[in-house]
Amino acid sequence: MADKKLVEEITSRDVDFAQWYTDVVKKAGLMSYSSIKGFMNYLPAGYAIWENIQRELDRRFKEVGVENCYLPMLIPESLLNKEKDHVEGFAPEVAWVTHGGANQLEERLCVRPTSETLFCELYKSIVQSYRDLPKTYNQWCSVVRWEKTTRPFLRSSEFLWQEGHTAHATGEEAEEFTIKMLNVYADFCREFLAIPVVKGQKTDKEKFAGAQQTYTIETLMHDGKALQSATSHNFGDGFARAFDIQYTDRDNTLKYVHQTSWGMSTRMLGAVIMVHGDDSGLVLPPKVAPVQIMIVPIRQNAEGVLDKVEEVSGELKAAGLRVKCDLTDKSPGFKFAEAEMRGIPLRLEIGPKDIEKGMCVVARRDTGEKKEASLSGIAEFIKNELSQMHSDMLKKAEAFLDSHISDAHDYDEFKKAIEEKPGFVRAMWCGDVSCEEKIKADTTATSRCMPFEQEMIDQKCVCCGKEAKKLVYWGKAY
Amino acid sequence: MADKKLVEEITSRDVDFAQWYTDVVKKAGLMSYSSIKGFMNYLPAGYAIWENIQRELDRRFKEVGVENCYLPMLIPESLLNKEKDHVEGFAPEVAWVTHGGANQLEERLCVRPTSETLFCELYKSIVQSYRDLPKTYNQWCSVVRWEKTTRPFLRSSEFLWQEGHTAHATGEEAEEFTIKMLNVYADFCREFLAIPVVKGQKTDKEKFAGAQQTYTIETLMHDGKALQSATSHNFGDGFARAFDIQYTDRDNTLKYVHQTSWGMSTRMLGAVIMVHGDDSGLVLPPKVAPVQIMIVPIRQNAEGVLDKVEEVSGELKAAGLRVKCDLTDKSPGFKFAEAEMRGIPLRLEIGPKDIEKGMCVVARRDTGEKKEASLSGIAEFIKNELSQMHSDMLKKAEAFLDSHISDAHDYDEFKKAIEEKPGFVRAMWCGDVSCEEKIKADTTATSRCMPFEQEMIDQKCVCCGKEAKKLVYWGKAY
Repeated sequence: MADKKLVEEITSRDVDFAQWYTDVVKKAGLMSYSSIKGFMNYLPAGYAIWENIQRELDRRFKEVGVENCYLPMLIPESLLNKEKDHVEGFAPEVAWVTHGGANQLEERLCVRPTSETLFCELYKSIVQSYRDLPKTYNQWCSVVRWEKTTRPFLRSSEFLWQEGHTAHATGEEAEEFTIKMLNVYADFCREFLAIPVVKGQKTDKEKFAGAQQTYTIETLMHDGKALQSATSHNFGDGFARAFDIQYTDRDNTLKYVHQTSWGMSTRMLGAVIMVHGDDSGLVLPPKVAPVQIMIVPIRQNAEGVLDKVEEVSGELKAAGLRVKCDLTDKSPGFKFAEAEMRGIPLRLEIGPKDIEKGMCVVARRDTGEKKEASLSGIAEFIKNELSQMHSDMLKKAEAFLDSHISDAHDYDEFKKAIEEKPGFVRAMWCGDVSCEEKIKADTTATSRCMPFEQEMIDQKCVCCGKEAKKLVYWGKAY
Repeated sequence: MADKKLVEEITSRDVDFAQWYTDVVKKAGLMSYSSIKGFMNYLPAGYAIWENIQRELDRRFKEVGVENCYLPMLIPESLLNKEKDHVEGFAPEVAWVTHGGANQLEERLCVRPTSETLFCELYKSIVQSYRDLPKTYNQWCSVVRWEKTTRPFLRSSEFLWQEGHTAHATGEEAEEFTIKMLNVYADFCREFLAIPVVKGQKTDKEKFAGAQQTYTIETLMHDGKALQSATSHNFGDGFARAFDIQYTDRDNTLKYVHQTSWGMSTRMLGAVIMVHGDDSGLVLPPKVAPVQIMIVPIRQNAEGVLDKVEEVSGELKAAGLRVKCDLTDKSPGFKFAEAEMRGIPLRLEIGPKDIEKGMCVVARRDTGEKKEASLSGIAEFIKNELSQMHSDMLKKAEAFLDSHISDAHDYDEFKKAIEEKPGFVRAMWCGDVSCEEKIKADTTATSRCMPFEQEMIDQKCVCCGKEAKKLVYWGKAY
């Protein structure tokens, strides 16, 4: 990939958002297409973002007692078939292994689309007593779902994710854990990715195949479309009954366990791009950025410049910052554009004149703002800038979200809002799936969630006019 | 799994090594079998060891400039077929995906057994100029090879590993990188797992399908069998010619790249168990142990004991140590046995009498040695113990390796050594594959490697008596 391509003009975000997205993904070197339709190569610049997401999310999981494990990537057809709703939801989109080497297998195996059934099998074998509960396991892996239309990170036939699967003694404990993990995701999005979320419950129509309740965090992209960013499911004892997972309780009676599952995927790379990116390319929130500071020497052949660059770089590294120096023979302007395309949070420029004054120039990727900074105490200065940048990016995203939520009180207003006001539309709903279906048919919008913070903004369902039961966030979605 | 099972007697290591291995793997809770033959569940206690291996190896990779990425888990049949030797080596043992959902695929896809072909496809698309070289990518993933007979961690139809794949401008550079990565593995084994290795080159018969040279590190298990623990391959330009991966060099001519690949897998869990374990269970080297110190309170209901346990645990955690407290209602003796089974390096006992004296008792898992230690400065004491334990475990393993290498000068001596002296047998070889085949047929031993440190211990091939070319380490292997 010639570097030159990286700084070629990209499509403007407001002219053609979909093309802008594809341009950024490619020119920032995040992924490339493989020869199999729907499968992609995660290139180092993209995978490093995922590694940082993994590290931080994994840390947060372990804080609440989650343990990692790894289960097989293949599932026997008979095992997948055990829970009726689940198999109906997934069977149409799985990849089937039929041969091992030259031999046809006695039973087909599917490449896991998700691993509820395998965890059920495992928990059945290792849970006997209330003393064995809870089990709070998680695995990091890839899953395969045969998709017809695909987009980098947002929808592909194989994607990377974590899937947590837990078993609890009671329904209350399972419900509590389901919400706890949803909150882990929500906090992670705000605190690490600078992305605000709407938390709520999915309607029956939109919930996970086999779940009693599905909770979701929904985020809003720059084009006003919603992205389901993580989900947390409470299965009640449905899977436990299908797989016969029972334990002996304190009172010596056999009881079914109650289960949950929850997942977040490489979709979040899409969210980061579409929430924060701009017409110069990617804008990475400082905490998730693989490279936080790019040092660009000005007149790098002048005496002392490279030494100083080396010294500053060492100082920043020693302070725990992720820093790189661009010492190629490209022009500074070219280097600036490249660092911008790749979304590197801060650029630090040092030239002979700066060195004379004991100063350098620090430019912020999100605002474009440039500041002079003293070279003494530069690590502290950079840390403050990065921390300020995170909170500014979050504030900006919050303001965007707030200004893209509108209320609709009747169906005309609703249709107009969906068509003309990109973002979420809040409107009351009667609880009938037929209204959800009509709304989707009329507008392509779907119910994103019933927010935890309920409010009766009207008495009647925005679609059919019958008695309203729930406030719903509606929107077009990825 | 009732805890009681954990401390049931395990088979003695010297009575039945294979059964001892299986007992330890199960009773330490490292894995369980899944319902598909040859596939296993990595349980938290086992997976946490792998996570530590990953973290440290990944850090060492990044130090030498390796970048992580992720390529698809499926490979089109036509792509696998491009390199003749490679497909012959792997096609008999791959799993074939033939259907996506309800539809038969136009072309079969195999679940990756290794990803040379995918990396070739990627490099072909992103390498154009000498400026794009070298590419030093790695991925952490699982691979599938349909095995007939399987053993936990050592041989299974799916296993976890990393596979590094690089492309270089010249053959010299590729060769240098192949050796560099072999050394990364060798140092990692010594410094992190306390396992000494024999470094060398594989014979043509034993090298990787498609490689020009394969280098290996061989380790020796307690039963005297060898375990191939990591390999590093130099492909020359063989794959580049098959996949047409060319770059424009400085002199403006098109040249083929030179490639390498190298991998280490969850096999290393097997090595750790079989090198260090004993009749009380697992013995984990301190650096890889998920829990380094288990604190066991003595008379935990006596006043002040739990407070002190909490305090010491906090102090050790603050010092960066991985510590757990066993506060269950089991007896101390039971807790000791459990911690031993799980291989936890140090046990720290605190009771009312210890607290009175400001002391505690620290017991080492490898030697069984118990020491009194002052509670003031306990973190420093523990760190020294762990560091001493690592170097003692390495020394012990080195002494074992050294005492299990014997020389053979003629074929009778050779056969006798293979039969009666567990370990490596050093003997000269003429270079003919027919001698390797005869030796394997006669003794089941294989050529493990031609060590880097060559020595002419004889003039004649130990098998056929013709002129000797190479000193070879022979042995029975996993």
